[in-house]
Amino acid sequence: MLVKILGSAAGGGFPQWNCACPNCRALRAGTFPGKARTQTQIAVSADGNPWFLLGASPDLRAQIEATPELQPRSEADPSIRQSPIAGVVLANADVDHALGLLLLRELQPLRVYATESVHRILREDNSMFAMLERVPNQVTWTSFAPGTSFPLCAPSGKDSGMHCRALSLGTHFPAYVSNSWWSELKPSDASLGLIVESPSGKRLACMTAVPEITDTLLHELDSVDVILFDGTFWSDDELIRMQGPGHNAQTAHQMGHIPVSSSEGSLVKLARLRRQRRIYVHINNTNPMLNEDGPEHRQVREAGWEIAEDGWQLEI
Amino acid sequence: MLVKILGSAAGGGFPQWNCACPNCRALRAGTFPGKARTQTQIAVSADGNPWFLLGASPDLRAQIEATPELQPRSEADPSIRQSPIAGVVLANADVDHALGLLLLRELQPLRVYATESVHRILREDNSMFAMLERVPNQVTWTSFAPGTSFPLCAPSGKDSGMHCRALSLGTHFPAYVSNSWWSELKPSDASLGLIVESPSGKRLACMTAVPEITDTLLHELDSVDVILFDGTFWSDDELIRMQGPGHNAQTAHQMGHIPVSSSEGSLVKLARLRRQRRIYVHINNTNPMLNEDGPEHRQVREAGWEIAEDGWQLEI
Repeated sequence: MLVKILGSAAGGGFPQWNCACPNCRALRAGTFPGKARTQTQIAVSADGNPWFLLGASPDLRAQIEATPELQPRSEADPSIRQSPIAGVVLANADVDHALGLLLLRELQPLRVYATESVHRILREDNSMFAMLERVPNQVTWTSFAPGTSFPLCAPSGKDSGMHCRALSLGTHFPAYVSNSWWSELKPSDASLGLIVESPSGKRLACMTAVPEITDTLLHELDSVDVILFDGTFWSDDELIRMQGPGHNAQTAHQMGHIPVSSSEGSLVKLARLRRQRRIYVHINNTNPMLNEDGPEHRQVREAGWEIAEDGWQLEI
Repeated sequence: MLVKILGSAAGGGFPQWNCACPNCRALRAGTFPGKARTQTQIAVSADGNPWFLLGASPDLRAQIEATPELQPRSEADPSIRQSPIAGVVLANADVDHALGLLLLRELQPLRVYATESVHRILREDNSMFAMLERVPNQVTWTSFAPGTSFPLCAPSGKDSGMHCRALSLGTHFPAYVSNSWWSELKPSDASLGLIVESPSGKRLACMTAVPEITDTLLHELDSVDVILFDGTFWSDDELIRMQGPGHNAQTAHQMGHIPVSSSEGSLVKLARLRRQRRIYVHINNTNPMLNEDGPEHRQVREAGWEIAEDGWQLEI
């Protein structure tokens, strides 16, 4: 199975348009010892065609143009409108995870997998998504329930050989979903981790929003070959310290993310895993581990973790 | 007044993610005699700070990062979260014109000018836009009526000295707006051209979706100093010929765009204007005038028009 990391930053990207934190400032000045990153976007493929996206980031247009494998292939298909992208699996309805669907709107057949609640938020409460249903056989909305395995299929129904299973990790829907809607939605549908299994049984975990690390989650992670894990914040009060008082900043936990550092952080909590490949993704622009010369970066690397960069490709 | 053309392509950009037309194929192969373009985005400023955006394109994050003037300025403002972008004027509710508002969501104060109908479509029928109203004094929604002039003000109320006036050009709301909604919306609010006037009385017209050129429009255009005009399609049946039968393609007119060529096109219809600067923007990936070696490009240039490229700056 091929895995592409098209983007590796948290919502807003790195740098973020309105951010003048030390990381963003230095990156723009060309003095930052580290790399710019677009918003997290993963793509998987059993054998190089077709591809399935995990999430649909707001940077998807640029990410596709940076990735020849995801562009139309006129040698294989003479159609003027075509794409090797056959589907998208959504783990939540966050803007930085679902908005990119609207960038895939040009009448292209596509299968979109999500929980019933996420489908309803997008289709019933956001009319723009009707752009994906303008012609017959454009987007095929396919619901799944957390915990059950489902095959990743092209819009035609053709099975890719890959399977996906979602774990319910959080019960909070995005802040834009009005309270009046919550009673109609299933909390277990809100925020998921995804486990993708290749035709030969290899497993990738993709979990970009992990509020806590339970024994169940540890057990699941122990069975996978590569982990892409929530690296949003280094410390719980990172945004609050950065922005100062009176700026409505929240803790990492309040935003649904376990931080990387501290005795309660993912670096410690996941230390007992066996030695599979472990990669932090969804890294916020304020996270000091982005600085490749800094002690935080060193600490993460010495613990056996990698810090994802845009453009990486893995083979599992 | 400073005018920046951050993006100059029509919806989807050039190349477009799922397009294998001759232009997109050649561009990706590196053999196209012409330039890639992001989706149309204009920014204006009386004196370099603050800036106002005309539209909010889906490529806005990358467009801001390509434009130092639109990035936070720590030398002038020590805040961690800040932006020289003070507001956005929307001419319609199209995805390729309004989606970028959601990329400006990180709790930043911002004034968003639009007609009452466009505001309602975004705020009442698309819950994601609640991300712009998470804290007090985040987005200030400001309505205007076509035909009346209004000052461009920062969220604080500070007047930039620039004024804007909108002309009603079309009565069709975007395809995603459901029919049941149309009765609540004003047709004259649907699709506008914008005229921005500098503090010294210089005028910019920005009209990216022009269904027909009336005498009233000609009269208006005659009074401006620079025209940014709808260059979406070269010919009326461009998409139909490109895609072949059975692909649900529409004519340029059906999509609300007068084509550039033919006796009914903008090149002929606007030939009688006085010799102000005239620039085509919002150019679709299929438009042959993108090819700088082609006869269509030469014809446009010989008629005294320019074809916008990303990154251009004008001073009016």
